[in-house]
Amino acid sequence: MFEIKSKDGLGRTGILKTGHGTVRTPALMPVIHPGKQTIDVKGPGAEIVITNAYIIYRNPELREKALSDGVHRLIDFDGPIMTDSGSFQLSEYGDIEVENPEIIRFQDEIGTDIGTSLDIPTPPGVSHRRALEEVEVTLERARESIEYRERMMLNAVVQGSTHPDLRRYCASRLAELPVELHPIGAVVPLMESYRYRELVDAVLSSVSELPPSRPRHLMGAGHPMLFALAVSMGCDLFDSAAYILYAEDDRLLSTEGTYKLENLQEMPCSCSVCTDYTPSELMGMDREERRNLIAEHNLHVSFAEIRKVRQAIHDGNLMELVEERCRAHPRLLEGYRRMSEYLDLIEKFEPRSKRSAFFYTGPESLGRVEVHRHLKRVKEHLGERLALVAPSRRPYSSSLPARIGGFSSLRPQSGGPWRVVVVDLPFGIIPLELDQVYPLAQSDAPGIMDLDGEEFLRGLVRDLMDGDAIVDDALCSELGIELPYKYMGEVETTVDDLDRVRMVADYQFGMGAGELLFTDDVRIERSRNTGKIRHIYAGDELICTMRASDGLLVLGAEGAVRLHQGTDYPACRVAVNEESEPFARKGKSVFAKFIIDCDNNIRANDEVLIVNADDELLATGKALLCAEEMMDLNHGQAVKTRKGGF
Amino acid sequence: MFEIKSKDGLGRTGILKTGHGTVRTPALMPVIHPGKQTIDVKGPGAEIVITNAYIIYRNPELREKALSDGVHRLIDFDGPIMTDSGSFQLSEYGDIEVENPEIIRFQDEIGTDIGTSLDIPTPPGVSHRRALEEVEVTLERARESIEYRERMMLNAVVQGSTHPDLRRYCASRLAELPVELHPIGAVVPLMESYRYRELVDAVLSSVSELPPSRPRHLMGAGHPMLFALAVSMGCDLFDSAAYILYAEDDRLLSTEGTYKLENLQEMPCSCSVCTDYTPSELMGMDREERRNLIAEHNLHVSFAEIRKVRQAIHDGNLMELVEERCRAHPRLLEGYRRMSEYLDLIEKFEPRSKRSAFFYTGPESLGRVEVHRHLKRVKEHLGERLALVAPSRRPYSSSLPARIGGFSSLRPQSGGPWRVVVVDLPFGIIPLELDQVYPLAQSDAPGIMDLDGEEFLRGLVRDLMDGDAIVDDALCSELGIELPYKYMGEVETTVDDLDRVRMVADYQFGMGAGELLFTDDVRIERSRNTGKIRHIYAGDELICTMRASDGLLVLGAEGAVRLHQGTDYPACRVAVNEESEPFARKGKSVFAKFIIDCDNNIRANDEVLIVNADDELLATGKALLCAEEMMDLNHGQAVKTRKGGF
Ligand SMILES: [Mg+2]
Ligand SMILES: [Mg+2]
Ligand SMILES: [Zn+2]
Ligand SMILES: [Zn+2]
Repeated sequence: MFEIKSKDGLGRTGILKTGHGTVRTPALMPVIHPGKQTIDVKGPGAEIVITNAYIIYRNPELREKALSDGVHRLIDFDGPIMTDSGSFQLSEYGDIEVENPEIIRFQDEIGTDIGTSLDIPTPPGVSHRRALEEVEVTLERARESIEYRERMMLNAVVQGSTHPDLRRYCASRLAELPVELHPIGAVVPLMESYRYRELVDAVLSSVSELPPSRPRHLMGAGHPMLFALAVSMGCDLFDSAAYILYAEDDRLLSTEGTYKLENLQEMPCSCSVCTDYTPSELMGMDREERRNLIAEHNLHVSFAEIRKVRQAIHDGNLMELVEERCRAHPRLLEGYRRMSEYLDLIEKFEPRSKRSAFFYTGPESLGRVEVHRHLKRVKEHLGERLALVAPSRRPYSSSLPARIGGFSSLRPQSGGPWRVVVVDLPFGIIPLELDQVYPLAQSDAPGIMDLDGEEFLRGLVRDLMDGDAIVDDALCSELGIELPYKYMGEVETTVDDLDRVRMVADYQFGMGAGELLFTDDVRIERSRNTGKIRHIYAGDELICTMRASDGLLVLGAEGAVRLHQGTDYPACRVAVNEESEPFARKGKSVFAKFIIDCDNNIRANDEVLIVNADDELLATGKALLCAEEMMDLNHGQAVKTRKGGF
Repeated sequence: MFEIKSKDGLGRTGILKTGHGTVRTPALMPVIHPGKQTIDVKGPGAEIVITNAYIIYRNPELREKALSDGVHRLIDFDGPIMTDSGSFQLSEYGDIEVENPEIIRFQDEIGTDIGTSLDIPTPPGVSHRRALEEVEVTLERARESIEYRERMMLNAVVQGSTHPDLRRYCASRLAELPVELHPIGAVVPLMESYRYRELVDAVLSSVSELPPSRPRHLMGAGHPMLFALAVSMGCDLFDSAAYILYAEDDRLLSTEGTYKLENLQEMPCSCSVCTDYTPSELMGMDREERRNLIAEHNLHVSFAEIRKVRQAIHDGNLMELVEERCRAHPRLLEGYRRMSEYLDLIEKFEPRSKRSAFFYTGPESLGRVEVHRHLKRVKEHLGERLALVAPSRRPYSSSLPARIGGFSSLRPQSGGPWRVVVVDLPFGIIPLELDQVYPLAQSDAPGIMDLDGEEFLRGLVRDLMDGDAIVDDALCSELGIELPYKYMGEVETTVDDLDRVRMVADYQFGMGAGELLFTDDVRIERSRNTGKIRHIYAGDELICTMRASDGLLVLGAEGAVRLHQGTDYPACRVAVNEESEPFARKGKSVFAKFIIDCDNNIRANDEVLIVNADDELLATGKALLCAEEMMDLNHGQAVKTRKGGF
């Protein structure tokens, strides 16, 4: 059982429930060698571990103990245990001495929480034909495993080598099977040779077809440098043999890369090993003591990074963390840059509002979903006759003078009024009406631009100038634009309250929502403290509240009724089944398993209408999941109901 | 006493010697409140602390104890102690009740290791006139302090507000005084409001005039997010009250920014506090216990970052760390981008070879000294008739086919031979002869370019096409260049060994060195293992060895003689005094204090000739410092002598 708790792009934190307790995801599973383990992995933070069922199966002593006492006693770990099936050995040695049904039955018999079918780990770069043949075997083994497993959860591994179409094919077939988790396999050779661009293609092709309700495990990924990027592609589980393999070789893991002990002058981390010992003290120890301490360091930094990644998802700044981590190596940065080819996929899962500001950290920031989503939507709402101005201090509408002069244009222009639009990084086009809305208000960019930033703004200005537009001198000079006609008038920058709330509504709920919700007779109340718009009423009935944290609208009862009456099913709606209806009416939260239908455009943190199968309005609430997740997940909350009683 | 141990850009690791022991720099000095301290700062890594002499002076009880037992007993710290003089109180309250001579004498009497004169901390943004007046007072107090101090080392603070010319003026006057350290003052308001661009101007203006032989202390900088950037600007000391002030407010420091405890789901670090406690456990504690644990975390992450920064200098990848850290906030990135305005300053201190590869991490990488230095020098050596080709796998000369076709050109071109030049990020122009030389061989860039990268390469190709040049199809299509004339011939890519070693010598020692060192009769030996050029002989006399690690030339005895005879004083030379001459002849290392003159162009890790005042050749060696440091420092090694005996 898997629940999603918080989201950021394709990344999510969740809870994986097993017979031996629950695991917070993203999670790192240290690899435990059955019978050889000397390192404590629980102290640094392991909630789940992975061990190799094939090794146990092949060793008479281990096998007997596992069959009699169970795998938890065998490796002395009382939390959830995942087992691998021997496909690693298959990839290393070309052949193994067990069949799939037998290793599936064995895993179940020794009490594994999560077992794995014996897939074919097709390496990168093989022919399409071979990769396809092996995918078919992998698929057949996954189907077979379902017959043979009894109690354990089942891993069904996505293969397909470096052929994105085969990754998609394999993932989409596996998605139809009743299994619980999906490892993404045979990516270790890509990681070992820094082929991160191909890794991104392999992972995102797989993820695009995998059901969001199942955890995805990036097999063999154990270097903390990679965790943030992998999680931002939708991976939930990692396994680490790296902590001990690197330690054997006197290498220390770090989010910046790998340190060789012999090159260290200083211990480069805040863990207890790094504060208690110096590099030369470690060098002076005997091999095993040194290895264990380095392994302990490796576990500490790895679990700290996993915690930091989970925190970043909760805070909504996972991509900023990725952008930092990807500076560890140009090939990692290349992989991250490649992600901008998957915007449509990522957009489906990207929450509409987050706790953190959007930071421009380089040209890659312009390739983020938030920027593309904004531009697509804002262009619907711009209208004609635009006055493009250079940015002032945020919020722009408070810092701009009431009237501005000094405009010029491509064609002769006369008379007002003009809609004032600020042209600024990272979001490009910000109509003053939207200057307090997330993420436009919650964003920042360096004052010294790079060429991508400059060209992005220049391109937007050029496009907008094709319509009726005037451009202020500051913006022209910043972007090196020369225009033939001076505009002699001045432009007013005051934003009318009604215009503002209507445009926010259009931006948030779709075109037309503004006039629908806010008829000419509404009453707009401002906060006494901040002077900002707070409530919009029809008489004494609350239509909407404008939330201080992100400038977006929260529906009141009257607003919900207006939006429901004025739009057609399924716009802005989450439809629940009969069983759930009385709870929703009472204002109780909606669980994913009761949802029968919803608007495809719903994203996490959207305001939604909760309706029944007959489209009767039951309540309003805030979506916690996106449409695809609502339809796919069967556990956990999907909508936080704000108000029932309709 | 201050020695430089290793260098990277303006950053350096060093040893500061005091009466209470030595300190490794860069160092973080936790602020100790006299009489109130409850936190152990030594455990997490403090080697030096700072406390406030004015607070001690003003409190009768503390004052008496300090005067009778000394400040070390008073605050119970047996390592070096720096004291501040009350200028912080001056900046906060506008007035204090002590004069400069009195507080200087007091600091000396209580046994401070490093005392501070009572400077005027002029805030940012004040008029030039006021800032200048206050700088004059600050300068006068610094001069006065020298009269009154007896034993302690003395801090002389650079002021000048946000006027770079006044920072330079103040620093250049202070540089003339016999003091030991230079705080850079009144920058806290800039840091508090994220005005990092102005911080960069203030710091680099100051550093440009400060003697490299004295540690610089960025006063009030205690956030680990900033350490890497500050060190890369030449700062050696930081003081942190942040660890306790942030803890008082339930805030946790991190290199990615600041976490508020109430927003934490997870402890985001590997320190013992973060592994032993959860956020909710901390929230449940009483205030003081919680504060102390958060302060402990804050110290752990701060000292870990200081260690990581020192390691990065040693490894020669400080700028890569800076580029990662600056993604924590767009204003930090803006500050870093501003640094490219100070290339001439940084270049003087940038080592010529480092242990680490150069990573392209974004457009800022093109603004780094290494790129500018390379382009300036390589353009002297290119000659005419260039065949520009797209990059293959590194080293290019091994992966390019022996003959390439498919070129075109701006003007009709005919016949060979052509010098093959690879056009690639980050270094732009790489003649095949130099493709194994640092940093060209030790570099990497993402395969997906940003616009700055593209435009950089396009600009170089355009410039080179003005001469006689042909460009291959792959490069034209990658950069979107169309050329009118097809070139029908093919281009040979084989590099002649003699051409290679001569070009490396020219690149390394300056134009003409190649023919001077490597006459037509030299014998070139290759490594049996790698097949790479290893030794170049004249008969049995070793001229040079080509170092495997960076492809640069190490002078043998014959090479040293040839270079010495063929060049004029002071080219490539470090001149030592009589006292040092016999040691140098014996191959002992040269200490900075014995150096009487040197070539201004010497940079750390250059091969140099060691001569006496009469320009007699004594030895050869590797510079550990740059020219300016050699002339200014009086402690530590300056040249690691390789071979004496001349
Ligand atoms: Mg459902
Ligand atoms: Mg000297
Ligand atoms: Zn550590
Ligand atoms: Zn911590």
